[in-house]
Amino acid sequence: MDSESLRESLSSLSLPKNHLTLGLTNLINQSKDLSTLLKHKKLPDHPFTDLQIQTIILTLSTLDTNNEFSLNNHNSTAAGRWVGVGEREGRIYSSLVSSRNFGLGHGMGRSGDIMEPQPKAVGSSILVQLTKHLVIDAMIRGAGLKAEKNGGPVNHGLILPICTGMSVALVLSSLREQDESESDVKKDVVLWSRIDQKSCFKAVLSAGFQCVVVPTKIEGDMVVTDMDAMKKNVEKYKGRVRAIISTTSCFAPRVPDSIDDIGRLCKEDGIAHIVNNAYGLQCQTTVKLLNRACVVGRVDAIICSTDKNFLVPVGGAIVTSPNEKMIATISKVYAGRASSAPILDLFITLLSMGLSGYKKLLEERRQLMIDFKSKFEEVAKKYGERPLVCPKNTISYGITLDTLSQPLEGEDPQSINAGKMTSSFGSMLFTRCVSGTRVVAKGGLKTMGGQDFVGFGSSTDYYLSSYLTAACAIGLTENEMNEFFKRLDKCFKDYFAKRKKALKKKIQDES
Amino acid sequence: MDSESLRESLSSLSLPKNHLTLGLTNLINQSKDLSTLLKHKKLPDHPFTDLQIQTIILTLSTLDTNNEFSLNNHNSTAAGRWVGVGEREGRIYSSLVSSRNFGLGHGMGRSGDIMEPQPKAVGSSILVQLTKHLVIDAMIRGAGLKAEKNGGPVNHGLILPICTGMSVALVLSSLREQDESESDVKKDVVLWSRIDQKSCFKAVLSAGFQCVVVPTKIEGDMVVTDMDAMKKNVEKYKGRVRAIISTTSCFAPRVPDSIDDIGRLCKEDGIAHIVNNAYGLQCQTTVKLLNRACVVGRVDAIICSTDKNFLVPVGGAIVTSPNEKMIATISKVYAGRASSAPILDLFITLLSMGLSGYKKLLEERRQLMIDFKSKFEEVAKKYGERPLVCPKNTISYGITLDTLSQPLEGEDPQSINAGKMTSSFGSMLFTRCVSGTRVVAKGGLKTMGGQDFVGFGSSTDYYLSSYLTAACAIGLTENEMNEFFKRLDKCFKDYFAKRKKALKKKIQDES
Amino acid sequence: MDSESLRESLSSLSLPKNHLTLGLTNLINQSKDLSTLLKHKKLPDHPFTDLQIQTIILTLSTLDTNNEFSLNNHNSTAAGRWVGVGEREGRIYSSLVSSRNFGLGHGMGRSGDIMEPQPKAVGSSILVQLTKHLVIDAMIRGAGLKAEKNGGPVNHGLILPICTGMSVALVLSSLREQDESESDVKKDVVLWSRIDQKSCFKAVLSAGFQCVVVPTKIEGDMVVTDMDAMKKNVEKYKGRVRAIISTTSCFAPRVPDSIDDIGRLCKEDGIAHIVNNAYGLQCQTTVKLLNRACVVGRVDAIICSTDKNFLVPVGGAIVTSPNEKMIATISKVYAGRASSAPILDLFITLLSMGLSGYKKLLEERRQLMIDFKSKFEEVAKKYGERPLVCPKNTISYGITLDTLSQPLEGEDPQSINAGKMTSSFGSMLFTRCVSGTRVVAKGGLKTMGGQDFVGFGSSTDYYLSSYLTAACAIGLTENEMNEFFKRLDKCFKDYFAKRKKALKKKIQDES
Amino acid sequence: MDSESLRESLSSLSLPKNHLTLGLTNLINQSKDLSTLLKHKKLPDHPFTDLQIQTIILTLSTLDTNNEFSLNNHNSTAAGRWVGVGEREGRIYSSLVSSRNFGLGHGMGRSGDIMEPQPKAVGSSILVQLTKHLVIDAMIRGAGLKAEKNGGPVNHGLILPICTGMSVALVLSSLREQDESESDVKKDVVLWSRIDQKSCFKAVLSAGFQCVVVPTKIEGDMVVTDMDAMKKNVEKYKGRVRAIISTTSCFAPRVPDSIDDIGRLCKEDGIAHIVNNAYGLQCQTTVKLLNRACVVGRVDAIICSTDKNFLVPVGGAIVTSPNEKMIATISKVYAGRASSAPILDLFITLLSMGLSGYKKLLEERRQLMIDFKSKFEEVAKKYGERPLVCPKNTISYGITLDTLSQPLEGEDPQSINAGKMTSSFGSMLFTRCVSGTRVVAKGGLKTMGGQDFVGFGSSTDYYLSSYLTAACAIGLTENEMNEFFKRLDKCFKDYFAKRKKALKKKIQDES
Repeated sequence: MDSESLRESLSSLSLPKNHLTLGLTNLINQSKDLSTLLKHKKLPDHPFTDLQIQTIILTLSTLDTNNEFSLNNHNSTAAGRWVGVGEREGRIYSSLVSSRNFGLGHGMGRSGDIMEPQPKAVGSSILVQLTKHLVIDAMIRGAGLKAEKNGGPVNHGLILPICTGMSVALVLSSLREQDESESDVKKDVVLWSRIDQKSCFKAVLSAGFQCVVVPTKIEGDMVVTDMDAMKKNVEKYKGRVRAIISTTSCFAPRVPDSIDDIGRLCKEDGIAHIVNNAYGLQCQTTVKLLNRACVVGRVDAIICSTDKNFLVPVGGAIVTSPNEKMIATISKVYAGRASSAPILDLFITLLSMGLSGYKKLLEERRQLMIDFKSKFEEVAKKYGERPLVCPKNTISYGITLDTLSQPLEGEDPQSINAGKMTSSFGSMLFTRCVSGTRVVAKGGLKTMGGQDFVGFGSSTDYYLSSYLTAACAIGLTENEMNEFFKRLDKCFKDYFAKRKKALKKKIQDES
Repeated sequence: MDSESLRESLSSLSLPKNHLTLGLTNLINQSKDLSTLLKHKKLPDHPFTDLQIQTIILTLSTLDTNNEFSLNNHNSTAAGRWVGVGEREGRIYSSLVSSRNFGLGHGMGRSGDIMEPQPKAVGSSILVQLTKHLVIDAMIRGAGLKAEKNGGPVNHGLILPICTGMSVALVLSSLREQDESESDVKKDVVLWSRIDQKSCFKAVLSAGFQCVVVPTKIEGDMVVTDMDAMKKNVEKYKGRVRAIISTTSCFAPRVPDSIDDIGRLCKEDGIAHIVNNAYGLQCQTTVKLLNRACVVGRVDAIICSTDKNFLVPVGGAIVTSPNEKMIATISKVYAGRASSAPILDLFITLLSMGLSGYKKLLEERRQLMIDFKSKFEEVAKKYGERPLVCPKNTISYGITLDTLSQPLEGEDPQSINAGKMTSSFGSMLFTRCVSGTRVVAKGGLKTMGGQDFVGFGSSTDYYLSSYLTAACAIGLTENEMNEFFKRLDKCFKDYFAKRKKALKKKIQDES
Repeated sequence: MDSESLRESLSSLSLPKNHLTLGLTNLINQSKDLSTLLKHKKLPDHPFTDLQIQTIILTLSTLDTNNEFSLNNHNSTAAGRWVGVGEREGRIYSSLVSSRNFGLGHGMGRSGDIMEPQPKAVGSSILVQLTKHLVIDAMIRGAGLKAEKNGGPVNHGLILPICTGMSVALVLSSLREQDESESDVKKDVVLWSRIDQKSCFKAVLSAGFQCVVVPTKIEGDMVVTDMDAMKKNVEKYKGRVRAIISTTSCFAPRVPDSIDDIGRLCKEDGIAHIVNNAYGLQCQTTVKLLNRACVVGRVDAIICSTDKNFLVPVGGAIVTSPNEKMIATISKVYAGRASSAPILDLFITLLSMGLSGYKKLLEERRQLMIDFKSKFEEVAKKYGERPLVCPKNTISYGITLDTLSQPLEGEDPQSINAGKMTSSFGSMLFTRCVSGTRVVAKGGLKTMGGQDFVGFGSSTDYYLSSYLTAACAIGLTENEMNEFFKRLDKCFKDYFAKRKKALKKKIQDES
Repeated sequence: MDSESLRESLSSLSLPKNHLTLGLTNLINQSKDLSTLLKHKKLPDHPFTDLQIQTIILTLSTLDTNNEFSLNNHNSTAAGRWVGVGEREGRIYSSLVSSRNFGLGHGMGRSGDIMEPQPKAVGSSILVQLTKHLVIDAMIRGAGLKAEKNGGPVNHGLILPICTGMSVALVLSSLREQDESESDVKKDVVLWSRIDQKSCFKAVLSAGFQCVVVPTKIEGDMVVTDMDAMKKNVEKYKGRVRAIISTTSCFAPRVPDSIDDIGRLCKEDGIAHIVNNAYGLQCQTTVKLLNRACVVGRVDAIICSTDKNFLVPVGGAIVTSPNEKMIATISKVYAGRASSAPILDLFITLLSMGLSGYKKLLEERRQLMIDFKSKFEEVAKKYGERPLVCPKNTISYGITLDTLSQPLEGEDPQSINAGKMTSSFGSMLFTRCVSGTRVVAKGGLKTMGGQDFVGFGSSTDYYLSSYLTAACAIGLTENEMNEFFKRLDKCFKDYFAKRKKALKKKIQDES
């Protein structure tokens, strides 16, 4: 309700006029905030309060038809304003469900297009559009991605209530849709710069393509894109390569792919280029790399996770592109409506952060990064290990884990099961309530979709060390980081004490 | 935000115009609902939805200053719109507390007057005023009380975030404030038509008066007002009687006081008359009695409970009066601010009900009443008991409990502890998850404030039966009622089985 | 906390022992409810209260690691119990988001399998498993689907946080995965018994298959499966047909496909059979048809919508199958994690309903159906129209709309634009706050994926009438239905009045 | 539910055992937290999360009977576990009300005693007891008050859902109850060391006592207790003085009363001593004063506000005493049940804070205090004013406002209305969204309860300056403080600019 009508309606309540004026000022200011938000579709500079955010969502929810049905009004004794005689009317049975969804029942999209406005659900439609604009603004003014005339990484975009993996599959499907060539040779191959992570690989298969894994190469400690191998494969599958998938956020020692080089290659050969940038927004180097790749080469779609970048529950992705048609096709290829829950979570979070809050988070991570690296190194050295030197990866850090399986004095080297011992160290950390570390034992093997991945986890067949990685990711607090290194230190100590004790017992038992 | 600005702000989102128009219709209609509510201050005919109610409360909350502080905005990185440098600024530490209170932190009232608007809290002030109007409208159009030119029971009123007992104390204090007589004799006595309930008695003492308990008399099964005793006491304490307190909602066999007669007496003798109408709104006979009493006699204040009449959590009362000055004085005598939580609960509930919902509740009770009485009688007769015939009490019903302590065949009458045995029946019911029944054993004694109450519970020294009461009160459902009688029946059966078993064992043990 | 420890811990609070015992009984009973739920995984007979449901979700949420981080604790001044150093730790920035998700941040699934338990999120994993069991129980004991030794429609199942369309795509992708034949001929064709709805058609393309639309045929008023056409196409694409997609819930005059016959055909020819049963659970005829089809023929997957069947917000689907391996493959083909929001909504709703509540809803629909049909007929006849006689569709009903475009007396038949006029009737209904009706004007045309659909909406090229459909779907209330017919009647009246007025004006203008 | 039963019940869900173990660890730890809380009744060292707090409240709520009624279960189709046939059963009509109250409907207390456990509401009873213990622990370990063998200020206590004013009235009523003397002279007088605040004064009248205002005296800039005047009044009303009320938290230039000296006097003369310590907990000097007063003199009751000390919504008070009987009597004198909402808010807030959070808040205030004083002085001097030197008040600070009403050059001194001009400065601040300042113009007059208060606001008849006060109270943030001084500075500037402009215009008009 606007403030003028409110003032008028309240006139009979005999409140002092000047009090009322001041109170209404708050309301006017809040309306201005909302109006600015809707008009400019920019992330507000400063956070909105929870109460303000709730008011906005309830206002949008009012625009949908379903909240005027009698079923959604548990105490109703009459028909509601709207009557619904379709097969899906957004009715909500449980008041708890209605309340946690602010009455929003229609999800997002229409059968024709995931970003299309719904006639029955104007408020939900606005929510989706607005969130798209806000998140892209956060990517530009917060993270530093560019939207430029000649095509920057975030010139166009859409938000999806599915994760990065399924988003990759959807992007690939939309590429097939765009195929207009009359060539006899079907573009049925996708090249994938090896990254040991299941979702992306499965996404390619799920979309109906053949996934060709392009090996990486080792540079110092780093696992990097092997451009020669990439080129060879483009040659090998000439005419059949529908797309190359590269990755910019990954666990050390793997570092972001050379997406500028890949982009150049794609441009030359007319191949689509999909960048899996799952959690790369928090890293300035990656952001710059993305900006450059769009200038020097071809990039068709960049996929970012909502949860990993904006600290919302799992379930959403943002797909951006320098190419408007690309985005439109993806939007159209999604079959049917979808849950808007991940979008609502993102909407609330962006308004809760404001630009200042998001920048603060990014800055805090950058600050922690320095300590993170040095403290990690410190613990490593204390136990005879060394840091993996991967300057191109500034999110995930690693240290070797080679001492864990070295025979102790008096221990029979034959009795050592290096893989198992290394893995047990990971379990020990988890038992000590440390989550998110990865322990990769040298020489592991995994089979996916019929293909073997040697050294699974390291994204290369040939890594020479076992190692442990940990990430200094957005949202980590200083207390938490310090606590991590304390527990890691303790865990090393416990590990060796345990082994020594077991060895001692064994020797005693044998004697 | 009003719909016009919304439409304008949304113009850039490229939503189909006709969709937007329909969505905005919902918003316009909702604004109309709120506007009508504020202008006419009448209970809406039909329930509002939870989402609508939340929107209204959040709108009111926005009018308060405290929601614009930075402390109340947990993610804020800047000062809020308002800065507060008083000692009490409505800041809320916990986001959980803020959310459950919709950000309302200032409570109600000012040090000078519990109903006075607060400059810092315009929204809270409106909430209080509006709730008062809505509840009085519910009392008029729902329950049937009258607000007439010549003075009906709800011509004026206020709502208090304290219970009926404390409200009685407050009303008494305000009567003292109104004393302007220069007489040497202090009006320090309150006459109280005996009703066995602690709160009211304590309220009189708490307000600093002497409480004179006026005995009741027995008419058939009913315990009724003894007007002769009342008159005698008025005579006895001539010039010292500040007020008579009567009661209209009570447990059988006590029936509502003859407040018309008491009103006449008060009018003649210039004595204030306070009616404790705790849960009497649900009863049409009582409502009519209240209407009549205000016509034929003097009534200064009628006190109703919010929880017992409107199914909200315990904690509020409504005080109404034919007399404007009376209400104004009570309002002013309250020392300081108060929690607005009970008022907020009432506000939400009234909008959730609407007039139709409230009437439905009243009607459902009236429907159940008939069955309640006959089913109660049925169970009673099955076990040799009989109903207490108290036609003037249509909320609480009773049956005798005299068989419980009659000696079984072969039982030594000397071994019978009638009081204890009767009481144990009440415990058995409670253990069977039946709450709210009262078992009154003949001849109990209780001392309060130095005075003895013989036969405590029955409101008379002389009641001849032990008995059990149960209420057919607003909110009871048919399933619940049927379940009650099933359990009561079972409880009788169990009681006698248990006694017989114990007797048998005793006899065996002795033989 | 269990009741025994609670009792012990409370011992120092000096509460009366018997009070405590009774209070703890409630807790014990509630624990029993939860324990029964977890052990038997059956829908509770009666609804759980909202408070009970919240307690259960919070208990599950506690099992996840992320709620013990410091970021999720806004007032924390120390590190939490857990420290997270991965790139995705389920941290939640906004307290509003955390609260509406009960702190659940990890979504569902792992990169390997959408139904797989997550080590960091035990509670979320339980939630998903449990919901699956509950919803299948609702489908069995509520709706009547069978889980039999020899393979019933719900022997195995999974729940997906994507809609029916995307679920169809996923099922098709998983069929490709299962392809182990070494044949040179690729199974790249999907046969689709025509149903005019975009999502399903797009799903086929999105999964990378060629969609062959098999025409329907007309039987009386009904549009039914053309088994001859189906067989011809199986023949035509011999060896290339990966699956047939049939549909059991649809708008009149289209009726459910003969899935028993299709099932037989699939069995004979070794073709997979996918049934789109979007909102068919509410219809007993369809349920029986599904049960029979699984006995007499082959059914690989049945897809049901969560929102259309269980009145939750849009966004989820249930896929069931007589075939365990089928379900396992679908589960594995999903690339990555997903939002668990639609599953949480379903979980809450199922517990809110209980078996009794769900059955009540189904029964209410069945009751309304009879009136719905006759009242629809009544309005139709009043305006010279007639009902479409489609006894095989008991959810969606239709009436002809042929009079709308008949020339009025004095009107030039040349000036009639039948399609436009008929469509305008649909808009009029929507403007009158009626949602969900479909108006199909004879002879419309739509192009999807390069194919033309003549008479789009009616699922056949040859339907002879324009018509209006409306559904008597689950959740519709009696008040709402009556209101619909009132508004429909009014809309007819307004339509003709408007036309007459316009004609009169035209004639006047011309003269 | 306890973790062992949970593990057992979950065994059939085929979750990896070690995952389950880790998840259950969280649950076990949370149970331990609750168990520790209940056993030791101490404020936890660190904050609990919102989810944990909600789980605890829902667990307590389960212990109450009302949540098992069918009315409180909106979807129920059967009777609940409990049936209620009393007149007040804690039924809650609105699901919104139920949810915001976590289903707690019975409030607190019984008719006999506000702190007494309720048989129907074991959970609510525990909530009240526990909150009392937690808040007293916060007062001891957080604020520094003592609970010592020989009687410290917080040896005993209770919490009340009414504000400080009404609490004072209740304490006074309870003093009357304790009167057992048979003397003919009634103790009807309360001495009140003048403090210009309505609530306390009204509380005395409301409790039925005569309030004798004992004047203060001026010492430098400070307004302090006049012990001579106090003694004279004790003498004057010999035998009639029921209590002395002193105040320890107040606006400058008034400083805390000499409660040690008053305490000594009370001890000698057998007079009760009530200390209004509304928001004194945040001030270490006051806390020490309270500790000392209890050692050297007599203190009967100390009243603290919950909102002003713990940042909860308005509505609660804590009454503590070295004297057990005193607390018991107050508890018993409250007539009836009461809302538990303010207690629930306090409970949540205390757990949200933990001891560390509360101490941090106290420390932050102490830090700000230094800047507050110097910045205030700075602004004052800039405009020719000076700070009021009141070292004994470390919460509220003041500056003179004497220049505001000095004639400008060319202004007619006769035209100056000093009072009005000074007041207008306060309004200007409020209009600039500054709340909480007080502007006191020299020589104001107010009449309360028939008594005149000259110089109202300054607590003395004789203050020589007009002045402005502002408080550096708990919860103020640094940003907010800085913003305040910025706005204050601006306001001075605007004030003089406005006056000059008006004068100029006046001169022009006249010429």
